[in-house]
Amino acid sequence: MDAINLKQKLQGFSDHWSPKIVSKFNGHDVMVVKAKGEFTWHAHDDTDDFFLVLEGNMTIETENGNVHLGPGDLHVVPKGVEHRPVAEEEVHILLIEPEGTPNTGDAATAAQKQEI
Amino acid sequence: MDAINLKQKLQGFSDHWSPKIVSKFNGHDVMVVKAKGEFTWHAHDDTDDFFLVLEGNMTIETENGNVHLGPGDLHVVPKGVEHRPVAEEEVHILLIEPEGTPNTGDAATAAQKQEI
Repeated sequence: MDAINLKQKLQGFSDHWSPKIVSKFNGHDVMVVKAKGEFTWHAHDDTDDFFLVLEGNMTIETENGNVHLGPGDLHVVPKGVEHRPVAEEEVHILLIEPEGTPNTGDAATAAQKQEI
Repeated sequence: MDAINLKQKLQGFSDHWSPKIVSKFNGHDVMVVKAKGEFTWHAHDDTDDFFLVLEGNMTIETENGNVHLGPGDLHVVPKGVEHRPVAEEEVHILLIEPEGTPNTGDAATAAQKQEI
């Protein structure tokens, strides 16, 4: 059996703010995403939001303050907390959310999550 | 607010096979662990087992075959699957398991998980 190499998965696409599912874990999607620029402010009423930066830098602006993350930095946004990810330069992130969670907090505006 | 730097957390301890809790996520413990040698064969009947190698190399031997992992490699052992992590040299791993999951699959032999 092969392990899932996150760098290799990230080499397979270039679009931003479009999470790709690389594995499943206890009803959650394990995803990699490339991001650059400012995302929309949103919250997830039913789930925490797991961010681990793999490469690059980002800020998670939240209603409770800003969190700056570089490579190897992790932050979990508690459920219900309004937040907005921002990255001046491209950042690569590992995300974990329950299967089907809209990345914008709203199904109408959410990216389609594709398995790769 | 500060992000959680995984390297910094790993610098704070040296014992093996003793997961340290660095964050919580949807009822799960997010943990870092240092490992070297052979762990015990075990399975978790109620949960998948999330492994992401941060530094070093390891093999997860499973009843379905072996998975070799290096830095940036991820593997989720499905619930119920017998497995044994093995590392010839020290490896640093990010683990995610539901709160209270015994790392050996058996509360009687499990390590105490400490928050750091």
